[in-house]
Amino acid sequence: NSKRPFTPCPAAVRTIAVEALKPLDSFERRHNSATKKEEAEMAKYVGFDSMDALVDATVPSDIRRAGSMDMGKWTQPLSESEFLSTFKSMASKNKVFKSYQGTGYYGTHVPTVILRNVLENPGWYTQYTPYQAEIAQGRLESLLNYQTMISDLTALPMANASLLDEGTAAAEAMTMCSAVNRGKKPKFLISDKCHPQTIEVCRTRADGLGLTVVVGDENSFDYSGNDVCGVLLQYPATDGAVIDYSPVVKSAHAAGAKVVAAADLLALTSLVPPGEWGADICIGSAQRFGVPMGFGGPHAGYLATSHDYKRLMPGRIIGVSIDATGAPALRMAMQTREQHIRRDKATSNICTAQALLANMAGLYAVYHGPKGLKAIADKTHGLASIFAEGAGKMGFAKPAAPFFDTVALGCPSGADKAVADCQKAGINIRKIDANTVSLSFDETTTMGDVDALFAALNGGSAPAFTAEALAPSVNASDFLARKSRFLTHPVFNAYHSEHEMLRYLARLEAKDLSLVHSMIALGSCTMKLNSTTEMIPITWPELANMHPFAPKEQTAGYREMFQELEKQLCEITAFDAMSLQPNSGASGEYAGLMAIRAYHQSRGDHHRDVCIIPVSAHGTNPASAAMVGYKIVVVGTDAQGNINIPELKAAAEKHSANLAALMVTYPSTHGVYEDGIKDVCDTIHKHGGQVYMDGANMNAQVGLTAPGIIGADVCHLNLHKTFCIPHGGGGPGMGPIGVKKHLAPFMPDHPSAELDGATPAGGETPFGVVSAAPYGSALILPISFAYISMMGSEGLTNASKRAILNANYMKKRLEDHFPILFTGKNGTCAHEFIIDLRPMTDKTGIGPEDVAKRLQDYGYHAPTMSWPVSGTLMIEPTESESKQELDRFCNAMIAIREEIRDIENGAIDKENNPLKHAPHTAAVVLSDKWDRPYSRETAAFPAEWVRQSKFWPTTSRIDNVYGDRNLVTTHAQVEVAAEETA
Amino acid sequence: NSKRPFTPCPAAVRTIAVEALKPLDSFERRHNSATKKEEAEMAKYVGFDSMDALVDATVPSDIRRAGSMDMGKWTQPLSESEFLSTFKSMASKNKVFKSYQGTGYYGTHVPTVILRNVLENPGWYTQYTPYQAEIAQGRLESLLNYQTMISDLTALPMANASLLDEGTAAAEAMTMCSAVNRGKKPKFLISDKCHPQTIEVCRTRADGLGLTVVVGDENSFDYSGNDVCGVLLQYPATDGAVIDYSPVVKSAHAAGAKVVAAADLLALTSLVPPGEWGADICIGSAQRFGVPMGFGGPHAGYLATSHDYKRLMPGRIIGVSIDATGAPALRMAMQTREQHIRRDKATSNICTAQALLANMAGLYAVYHGPKGLKAIADKTHGLASIFAEGAGKMGFAKPAAPFFDTVALGCPSGADKAVADCQKAGINIRKIDANTVSLSFDETTTMGDVDALFAALNGGSAPAFTAEALAPSVNASDFLARKSRFLTHPVFNAYHSEHEMLRYLARLEAKDLSLVHSMIALGSCTMKLNSTTEMIPITWPELANMHPFAPKEQTAGYREMFQELEKQLCEITAFDAMSLQPNSGASGEYAGLMAIRAYHQSRGDHHRDVCIIPVSAHGTNPASAAMVGYKIVVVGTDAQGNINIPELKAAAEKHSANLAALMVTYPSTHGVYEDGIKDVCDTIHKHGGQVYMDGANMNAQVGLTAPGIIGADVCHLNLHKTFCIPHGGGGPGMGPIGVKKHLAPFMPDHPSAELDGATPAGGETPFGVVSAAPYGSALILPISFAYISMMGSEGLTNASKRAILNANYMKKRLEDHFPILFTGKNGTCAHEFIIDLRPMTDKTGIGPEDVAKRLQDYGYHAPTMSWPVSGTLMIEPTESESKQELDRFCNAMIAIREEIRDIENGAIDKENNPLKHAPHTAAVVLSDKWDRPYSRETAAFPAEWVRQSKFWPTTSRIDNVYGDRNLVTTHAQVEVAAEETA
Repeated sequence: NSKRPFTPCPAAVRTIAVEALKPLDSFERRHNSATKKEEAEMAKYVGFDSMDALVDATVPSDIRRAGSMDMGKWTQPLSESEFLSTFKSMASKNKVFKSYQGTGYYGTHVPTVILRNVLENPGWYTQYTPYQAEIAQGRLESLLNYQTMISDLTALPMANASLLDEGTAAAEAMTMCSAVNRGKKPKFLISDKCHPQTIEVCRTRADGLGLTVVVGDENSFDYSGNDVCGVLLQYPATDGAVIDYSPVVKSAHAAGAKVVAAADLLALTSLVPPGEWGADICIGSAQRFGVPMGFGGPHAGYLATSHDYKRLMPGRIIGVSIDATGAPALRMAMQTREQHIRRDKATSNICTAQALLANMAGLYAVYHGPKGLKAIADKTHGLASIFAEGAGKMGFAKPAAPFFDTVALGCPSGADKAVADCQKAGINIRKIDANTVSLSFDETTTMGDVDALFAALNGGSAPAFTAEALAPSVNASDFLARKSRFLTHPVFNAYHSEHEMLRYLARLEAKDLSLVHSMIALGSCTMKLNSTTEMIPITWPELANMHPFAPKEQTAGYREMFQELEKQLCEITAFDAMSLQPNSGASGEYAGLMAIRAYHQSRGDHHRDVCIIPVSAHGTNPASAAMVGYKIVVVGTDAQGNINIPELKAAAEKHSANLAALMVTYPSTHGVYEDGIKDVCDTIHKHGGQVYMDGANMNAQVGLTAPGIIGADVCHLNLHKTFCIPHGGGGPGMGPIGVKKHLAPFMPDHPSAELDGATPAGGETPFGVVSAAPYGSALILPISFAYISMMGSEGLTNASKRAILNANYMKKRLEDHFPILFTGKNGTCAHEFIIDLRPMTDKTGIGPEDVAKRLQDYGYHAPTMSWPVSGTLMIEPTESESKQELDRFCNAMIAIREEIRDIENGAIDKENNPLKHAPHTAAVVLSDKWDRPYSRETAAFPAEWVRQSKFWPTTSRIDNVYGDRNLVTTHAQVEVAAEETA
Repeated sequence: NSKRPFTPCPAAVRTIAVEALKPLDSFERRHNSATKKEEAEMAKYVGFDSMDALVDATVPSDIRRAGSMDMGKWTQPLSESEFLSTFKSMASKNKVFKSYQGTGYYGTHVPTVILRNVLENPGWYTQYTPYQAEIAQGRLESLLNYQTMISDLTALPMANASLLDEGTAAAEAMTMCSAVNRGKKPKFLISDKCHPQTIEVCRTRADGLGLTVVVGDENSFDYSGNDVCGVLLQYPATDGAVIDYSPVVKSAHAAGAKVVAAADLLALTSLVPPGEWGADICIGSAQRFGVPMGFGGPHAGYLATSHDYKRLMPGRIIGVSIDATGAPALRMAMQTREQHIRRDKATSNICTAQALLANMAGLYAVYHGPKGLKAIADKTHGLASIFAEGAGKMGFAKPAAPFFDTVALGCPSGADKAVADCQKAGINIRKIDANTVSLSFDETTTMGDVDALFAALNGGSAPAFTAEALAPSVNASDFLARKSRFLTHPVFNAYHSEHEMLRYLARLEAKDLSLVHSMIALGSCTMKLNSTTEMIPITWPELANMHPFAPKEQTAGYREMFQELEKQLCEITAFDAMSLQPNSGASGEYAGLMAIRAYHQSRGDHHRDVCIIPVSAHGTNPASAAMVGYKIVVVGTDAQGNINIPELKAAAEKHSANLAALMVTYPSTHGVYEDGIKDVCDTIHKHGGQVYMDGANMNAQVGLTAPGIIGADVCHLNLHKTFCIPHGGGGPGMGPIGVKKHLAPFMPDHPSAELDGATPAGGETPFGVVSAAPYGSALILPISFAYISMMGSEGLTNASKRAILNANYMKKRLEDHFPILFTGKNGTCAHEFIIDLRPMTDKTGIGPEDVAKRLQDYGYHAPTMSWPVSGTLMIEPTESESKQELDRFCNAMIAIREEIRDIENGAIDKENNPLKHAPHTAAVVLSDKWDRPYSRETAAFPAEWVRQSKFWPTTSRIDNVYGDRNLVTTHAQVEVAAEETA
């Protein structure tokens, strides 16, 4: 501290190394957490001379990639600032026109308080799906708001907490209609007034399921065959018409068919809601409630229905239950419907939701309240009405039917001229047919915008009137006006000032554990770093405000990024083509299987319909196979947990004539690089089958091997696992598929390619369409593009190596305390490993759930519980966690093991102990009535680091059974229930 | 919940109101929290028919503004999206060139994890100054990091937690040098190699203080008069030269003068630090450590020195102390030096620091660590060296002296040509004189940038060599190379991966209460909403990346905004001119008084030097008056707390011949609109004085009255109070001054006006320069511009009315529980009020500190304690708090009053009670050793809402006296202290 002696140094010389002049904001060291020194220490600790030696001993040599990945100009990593500036230039090639194209996508103002504190906030976007409900009450409350909002607006009592988009929501509703009729009515009728992409997604889905879609005028639907399971109606219609569908409902119901309404949420603030005119199911998108268009997604799709169909409802449902103290508490309800339980009998293969976007939409309603939403609807309708009036004066044919926000115009000089005139003015409108255009108005439209439209359609000069001048002479339509109230719950009426909203968001966020607190060492999902630089571009206006059907020449920035990302992913997977359309892992599985199916059919092999799936597969695998009509043949595992290869060979042999595909995860879901995988692939190919690889464990492959090297024909990638898209508390995800050359012609396309000249996304003989938008959730693709570009070939490979190293380090640290279930031939694991609690459970009654809940007291989210093997925990640390964090987690696990030993020893009671009572809330540990045989400090501060920085669970252990038996899925029901009790 | 009957409505008509077509994302309702209905209820509750009736009864009619504010095109508010799009267009008029202008401002990469999680995060930027240390340990730790960093890099043992900028830091150091010599040595010598703006700020400051600045070659400094208190040296020099100043230090010390080094922090990673070559004080800016240039600010200025001068050190100092349990805890140290205690004897008038920016700079060092910083320095120096080499080859004269990052070049064709050639290529360089330019390299410079410079200086075409090719032949300088280690503390060596950094930031944030948690109802600072939309532009690159001395023609966007903001503020204050240069309230006070002084001097009234200040004034008032050499005459208050007008008149009469100014706050610091204010102003004017109004209470004036209406001649505005710049945990602030026409010619200017053609900021006969940058902290001015533009004339006026209503509502709710100290003639208060605890304290021993600390248990930050009246609390709710929040705070105060009643009743002990033990940490209430006469639940959950959402203080009550007696201000000292104890 005292001044040191004055020691100027003599001038000296050293030359300058070019290496030292490169940008220093390099990313790999920020992402791959451990230092080189720690890497060496850890390798030594697990018994190897180096990380590379560990990797060599772990990954079978016959599948190792020869050399490093050649990603062309992306081989060398960009620094963080280089990426941002490079990508800014690329994104700037997009031209954001004012869009009136509608068709399910609309301009919206994202309230800035939500933009910054939710969408741009890692405290929200890095959350995992709320399986650990006690440390997820914030987003569960927000999702209950969302469900309540959907239920109120549609006037149907029960909504799920989001589907992928409107198109797939319609397809899910179609599946429900079929299921309601126990699959006995194979026809599904779709009004020709539905959005084109919705129709196409349903057509494709029907194809796989063996249903028949008939598209036509809803007034001439033919029910005579008694074979119609359901009908789909658009409300308002795609051309804007507000139609009284009650006669259609009457006919459909008379014929035993269910009615699905695809409805616009903003319109439902003003129009009689589908639940009131007899719809059985209502679906749509919550995009225009404060979620940017983003060239197609992600947005929350919604689905609401009556309680009668609750067990047929796809997707996640948030429900109210009680906790161990009897207090109300929220959690995901009825998970027994889901794929990990029901497998091919599940109601749907969908597991990813759009939680982050559903939260945004629900919070938009919280911030605006019912009056605010109605005012937005009134303004939108008012401007549309004024525009129609003005267009009429200018010689266009005004719409005959009443409309809400979308005005279809007959064009005396043809639709193309109107479209072209508008484009000259920087405006996109929709061409419906040769003589008709439509324009959809929205929250962002101003009177000035309407005047600009008038001028554009008037050949570039303003007509004699203005929007403002016209207004008082124009009548608003009250046709089918809604009379019932909505969003009456206090949550939609209390937080309308920014301070109140900000604090509500902060209170919710504080209840939820996310990656900003500690590692989330799942084995089912890769929860690595979602870096800030990766996230920054997604709120750039040039990406966020693009309509998915914008003309090709306006989307050059997006298209360049897609092409480069596809190239990157092709090299990473060793595939020849990539489709970015599927917007979840399950959707990717489905798309991949559909491509295989189309391939077989193209060769006349319509009979090939057997799909072999190992028993250890993700539940979505059989659920997806069921959706393409495949018969599932399950093969078991051997004692080491590996696929039973003789059994698999026998099955392939037996079904050789009809073999369609194998679905396989690699490394296995047991966390092992199985040795015979090449042999397995060869066997399938020999019998004429195709190999579908589940990309869930891609984080153990990148740079070391690849699906294409191993022998797969198709693979989906979970960009939200391996490629850094954050989990958002349960979505969004992206599940693009890569394929070998022979499958490329069958890749999905999109109807917008024909309609508006938007980029075709598919092959030459596409199997169909799997998402409402051509590139799925395009807005989040930059996250993966950023990750790959900033890591470069070597950085990505190091990530895989580090993931393996971290897993083996933890395995080594824990193996003296917990038996490790499966390992590879050299005793190492892949990027994840399973600890077996069953012996301990047998002795003490302490099971995985108790350990999981106790981990919350230590500030940790549990690893994956009881999957893929019941009674175990599966741990995947990822490459992004520091040695310090791995150690802290291991210390927690070891400390818990010691607590269990006290039960084994009889030192503490088998029921009345910190594990069975976990998690401990502040209210419980502070209670004046504390009477437990362990101390409050033991309960809440089980380790010193917890004392330094405590994350408090906000509810005691939740009773799932109670919640499923007393299903409550909206706030309104909570109030009703409370009244009934009172 | 069941389906309602189908009730389509017949078509009806209603015409469309233009009003309903306007943008709906209006801001006022988000900012002014209460609804219209609540407004009416609250007015009724306080005994008035309406809010307007309350305001009429409260604000004296003789000072009420006639009509509403006419803000021209800003009279009508813009909606949030309208503002963002309008301002985006304006900001786009800026042209951001690559800048090599240096002179204390450099390009830097803000690490995105810091950008998003600190600068863009309301959890950090809405924090108040950490007066309530127990709920501020996060930023206190971060500021201790910052102090440690400054101390390590400068090799001086003690640093403060930031000053306003490098120029004012130099001026503060000059004042210290004078004080060390007890004011007996009036000369301060400044090397002509210092930055021009630093020299000018010192010159101006010296003028007011009665010191003489002599600028010259430091080798020929003249100490013969024995009248030199200190010398200022730039290291490296402004032209880049790295000079061995040891001979200068020797001479200065021999003459009893202190040595101040203005040093570049990045250079100090590579050069022998000033503390090692004998400097007594080291000052500078931490800007280039990850804080954007922002056209001049805000950035943290730093000052480090030895312990000998700790009581002379200006600004805030963070120190380590212990809490009630004996555990280490942080707080602001030695506040006894500050203005609210020492008034005109304070070491400085500065109270605002640059906490948010100091945090960013400190966290930048945490993220990069010592090796990372050294690598950045090496790269910067390497590129500078290569550039110098290349420039030499192209015929420019290379610098003779060694350099670090700045290369001064002799230009064979003159400096103007070189500057112009670069500008053609989108590059700004600095002109030093007719034949010399300089270029400063920085973290953001790439080899490509150097090649671009080569091409620009080669007439637009690349020369025969490239930077990369030159590199190996170039030698780096090791002249004065640093040998000592720095940043050895673990905090600078642990958080280098993004996950670790993210979690460190989250842990710190979680310790600090901010506006995201609850209202902060201070009476000394207006803590209103800092809205997201207001904050969004400050990280736009076109604003953030502008060098303060960029040529005028590149800054059109900024200049337009300044002009419009000045117009807005002139209308709001009823003044004729505005200077945006002062970057704190205290700096504004100083600037305003300097303008008054210059005005008097311009009239030959050099003798006018008496400044009347009421006893109730902010402590900065006398401190500022002292800095311009004024003699202070204090006048008292009457029994109602109002200025004693007869006493004031007598004082003015007595000092009539020498009267310079009155400094007055309005409404008074007692929260009252004093009735005689016009009379007071008239009296001062009659005696030839000028009225300086302190703008701290401007939030009670806007739209209702104005300083110019009341009779003030000059007023500063705290943009960080009234106009929504967030407090940032203790800065930044902005303190522009408004003046009547006769004072306009004296407004501050800036040397950059001449040097680079940057905008002149001042009047025709300016008094001098008060900030290093021409527009102070330009980057945060958009916040106030956004606020004013989105509120419009009526919204701003409503804000004042609501602020008055909210204060009176709270006063009414609390007055049965606590005596209210002062009110206006109709029994109402202004926008704040004082509750008197003294009677209660006399009875129970429970004082303001106990109440303040107990409020933390309720989740609240205390109001202002014991100021302006000892033994009281002063409460200012602001217009942005909802009725619900006001009620919740009042409920907390009332509940605390009840707890105190238990002491009065003898129901609970006078010392061992929840108030004296407050605040209660989780560790304390969970302790197995709880032995208090009240329950743990009483301690931690004193109200139901606390149970729902608890904010935990992380340390028990802090011992300030211990900390001041054992002053520890860096991490290094903590370690040393620990070693000594061990």
